[in-house]
Amino acid sequence: MIREQTGARQSSLRATNLALVLRTVCASPDPLSRAAVAGATGMTRATAARLVDDLVGGGLLDEVERVVLARRGRPATPLVPGARFAALGLQVDAGLLAARVLDLRGRVVAEQVTDGDFVGSAPVPTLARLGGLAADLLAGLPRNLRVVGTGLALPGIVDVDAGVLLRAPNLGWSDVRPADLLAPHLPSGASVVLGNEADLAARTVAETAPGRPGAHRDFLYLSGQIGVGGAAVLAGRVMSGSSGWAGEMGHVCVDPDGPPCRCGSTGCLEQYAGRHALLSAAGLPLDAAPGELAARVAAGDPAAGRALDTAARALGVALAGVINVLDIPTVVLGGHLGELAGLLRPAVQDHLDRRVLSAGWRRPTIAAADTHPAAGATGAALRVLGDVVADPARRLS
Amino acid sequence: MIREQTGARQSSLRATNLALVLRTVCASPDPLSRAAVAGATGMTRATAARLVDDLVGGGLLDEVERVVLARRGRPATPLVPGARFAALGLQVDAGLLAARVLDLRGRVVAEQVTDGDFVGSAPVPTLARLGGLAADLLAGLPRNLRVVGTGLALPGIVDVDAGVLLRAPNLGWSDVRPADLLAPHLPSGASVVLGNEADLAARTVAETAPGRPGAHRDFLYLSGQIGVGGAAVLAGRVMSGSSGWAGEMGHVCVDPDGPPCRCGSTGCLEQYAGRHALLSAAGLPLDAAPGELAARVAAGDPAAGRALDTAARALGVALAGVINVLDIPTVVLGGHLGELAGLLRPAVQDHLDRRVLSAGWRRPTIAAADTHPAAGATGAALRVLGDVVADPARRLS
Repeated sequence: MIREQTGARQSSLRATNLALVLRTVCASPDPLSRAAVAGATGMTRATAARLVDDLVGGGLLDEVERVVLARRGRPATPLVPGARFAALGLQVDAGLLAARVLDLRGRVVAEQVTDGDFVGSAPVPTLARLGGLAADLLAGLPRNLRVVGTGLALPGIVDVDAGVLLRAPNLGWSDVRPADLLAPHLPSGASVVLGNEADLAARTVAETAPGRPGAHRDFLYLSGQIGVGGAAVLAGRVMSGSSGWAGEMGHVCVDPDGPPCRCGSTGCLEQYAGRHALLSAAGLPLDAAPGELAARVAAGDPAAGRALDTAARALGVALAGVINVLDIPTVVLGGHLGELAGLLRPAVQDHLDRRVLSAGWRRPTIAAADTHPAAGATGAALRVLGDVVADPARRLS
Repeated sequence: MIREQTGARQSSLRATNLALVLRTVCASPDPLSRAAVAGATGMTRATAARLVDDLVGGGLLDEVERVVLARRGRPATPLVPGARFAALGLQVDAGLLAARVLDLRGRVVAEQVTDGDFVGSAPVPTLARLGGLAADLLAGLPRNLRVVGTGLALPGIVDVDAGVLLRAPNLGWSDVRPADLLAPHLPSGASVVLGNEADLAARTVAETAPGRPGAHRDFLYLSGQIGVGGAAVLAGRVMSGSSGWAGEMGHVCVDPDGPPCRCGSTGCLEQYAGRHALLSAAGLPLDAAPGELAARVAAGDPAAGRALDTAARALGVALAGVINVLDIPTVVLGGHLGELAGLLRPAVQDHLDRRVLSAGWRRPTIAAADTHPAAGATGAALRVLGDVVADPARRLS
């Protein structure tokens, strides 16, 4: 029931309005004055100014140099998200380890990305190595930077609440509790939030900085790694499904008679469009760069051409099915698929036009994500900072 | 911004609380007393009683015979949803026309279902015939029944806001405005809300009566018709996607080299598991009942067995992909697929166990919907009545 007068209401009202103010400043591509915050939120100038002062006092907003924003009137003090708050984003992938510190303005404050081969690796030494990277990064940070939490992107299905990586077929890991293994390397009491790599990488498309909308808000994201991860994003939010395991587009079956997949099924999309599958079909070594494949295709190499055609067909078939089911007709390709998007697009588009039931009314589109090594680590930090934006009152006490 | 005092707030407060009371009574499988309503909503008894009185006065709640609900205490007057409010649900399918009047208690007050062959039919005479059915049904209703609106279930993609059926491959219809064609047969000014057949049929699984939760709240629904429709339901709500066209699982590609589909693609699920596809693969006439196919399978008929195996494999492959993407591991089969669920289940389950990435943690399950001819018509009426439950204040003025 909604009641007009309730005792405990005032503090939650303040928390809601603080969040609204912080969200408004974070969402704006340009600095905002207190008056602009009032205008955007529907608050009085006095209320907005009071809440802004509290957020500035807590370091969640920063005042930047005073300028005359309008021709007439008093000079306004532009507000931006606070540079003192940051989060640590970590990532384990079959081909890399990454650690990245992102601040509330979305700037990368520090990072370290290390290539490696972690297919069939052992979780304990791998996570110890990642913990070492993280510890080095944290040790070098300015003292006034407040790292509020750690996110970890993993290429598999994750029980977020329990903090367990249930299964990552390409790593060969199952039932791993990464927080326990990372803990010795992180500040004591630091919390680690896990997430699926593609879900977190998709955040970097949906948001250019914590709480700031990116170019796409409704899209299917495919993360081209050694395998293929995926995420479906609607209204800027990654769809999680009933247990948080949604988005595994790499394991949509393209051909039931196709090659066996590490997951136990056959003919999964990643058996055609994953990096290893593509490179080996093209006769290239598994550590070759996507650009090398593109060069061979351009040079008319038949094996490379066939590998690319096969991948494009598999992407078209799988994505058409996903679009028919989800009605999200924008595809954003990340990782090596993003790098190869120009070459893949014509054939994928063809399949989508023909196989998506609603294509005649809203033609599906295919875009490439910004090439962003270890986007999962960035997304993991965005995830943690998203909690700060959603509930700044918690940080002010 | 949330404010404590706002002028126009009181009436929206009342509307919210009226909706909460009506929703509480509708959701309950048993009649509720005013005291029980107060308990369930957190209102004072006086407030609850006042709101209940308003709803009873407007016919949205009915008082049933006074009984002693508890051993001690005063006799309470049980409340149930009002029998005076009803909605008309209509359905056009490739194999039938249906009209059904459902009241706020979820009872079928009147209905008419006519089999026919509407594949490649002309929209104008077909909708005129449906309008005739509807007019007959409405003419025979008790005078005190208030039919608040009409819903129409269609087997294709629908622009709900514009009231346009964009495309129904199996009917062969495109760009049809059914409300214009039905209008001459309905009371003047009656509104007609369109919806996708499978989306609306899925509502009959999610709700046993308007606002009353059914056995499943998170599930994938497959509607076995001449084709195969689908809907994904999460927390009792049908997922609509960005334009309301989500759920087209019948057009998930099972084999890109498979037979051509009416939609323009190839190897769509409905080319293996649709009623026509199944029956013709089994060598049965297209108007044979699913039971006939089942009987042939039981008798060891090889063509029937093969047809069923092929359908089960296609269902397994397509549904595994959908579960990997959506993480909704409960499948409810409706229409002929529901009737054949017992025979289909073992092979479908096998594919799901093997092909769903998270099957080891949450094994997918397969259930059959209650056999319900023209479930889409029922769902269409539920859809209209859902609006009444959501905003009863509108009906009280």
